[in-house]
Amino acid sequence: MSSFAEPTVSSQLVYRGRIIRVRLDEVRLPDGSTGQREVVEHPGAVAVFARTADDRILLVRQFRKPLEREIWEIPAGKLEPGEDPAACAQRELAEETGYVAERWTHVASFYTSPGFADEIVHLYRAEGLTRGAARPDDGEFVEPALLTWEEAQEKVRAGLICDAKTLYALALWELDRLREGRS
Amino acid sequence: MSSFAEPTVSSQLVYRGRIIRVRLDEVRLPDGSTGQREVVEHPGAVAVFARTADDRILLVRQFRKPLEREIWEIPAGKLEPGEDPAACAQRELAEETGYVAERWTHVASFYTSPGFADEIVHLYRAEGLTRGAARPDDGEFVEPALLTWEEAQEKVRAGLICDAKTLYALALWELDRLREGRS
Repeated sequence: MSSFAEPTVSSQLVYRGRIIRVRLDEVRLPDGSTGQREVVEHPGAVAVFARTADDRILLVRQFRKPLEREIWEIPAGKLEPGEDPAACAQRELAEETGYVAERWTHVASFYTSPGFADEIVHLYRAEGLTRGAARPDDGEFVEPALLTWEEAQEKVRAGLICDAKTLYALALWELDRLREGRS
Repeated sequence: MSSFAEPTVSSQLVYRGRIIRVRLDEVRLPDGSTGQREVVEHPGAVAVFARTADDRILLVRQFRKPLEREIWEIPAGKLEPGEDPAACAQRELAEETGYVAERWTHVASFYTSPGFADEIVHLYRAEGLTRGAARPDDGEFVEPALLTWEEAQEKVRAGLICDAKTLYALALWELDRLREGRS
């Protein structure tokens, strides 16, 4: 199996932000020529597929500046430096929704945009949910809600559920429901 | 329902690259304070869930600079300016794999990283596949392969299938298989 590796010839930091950094790498391509690769460096994130015993999903409504609108997503948040993803998932669920869970399972870790960013999302399943009080971070404005399958599908059709991690969680939920004879 | 809108107070282009642009927006937050939002602008992309009549999936092996390694993904590619997503999906499938499809269905369009990027991926299902010759773009080095369900699951376990769009396609495939009584 031939290698398509692209070793770095030179690298330039072109933007150092509060959350992301951007570098421009000059690379050697497999055919010997050189090319440029733009890379967004991101600290990584967690996301939580929280399904209740009565078959509802916990989502949060949030304004997303890159989209210039509010959308509904599964609870998620960025990793702090050195933070354990499982601990981060519990923290984010509590901060954004006030819910705590009895059982946590790692579902998958995936890159969101491997063509231009190194962001990885660690997705957890949270079960045995009980409610406390939401306590969002300063500067984070989110509204949690529990949605039935039909309500979630309605939000998909309306374009209000429209991000990769949330659609993936809905597919996992549909797999659950099919196996349980609900769908 | 209260609005969490974050109107732009000022905006600064901090990086103008070949594929991405990055801006730093100062925004007014719902509590009246101001905050900063880093936004990566991306032209958008398409991806193709191509499943054969004998229940295999078409994937491509590709080096991803942000990850510094090769991974296996569903065929995908960036939109050209003004390009129709459906036409782009057919073009990318042919370029990366040489396959053409008789039937195309739009499955979903989703944002990959709504917290910091506006990238949207338009996912299509391609059926009725027949093989031509792969003709990658200059500077694009990809190897296509048809994988069985078991082979794909092995690549998931090995961490070689590890991006959001491809895991989502595998979940859709699993839903197909469950409905067909295969899984």
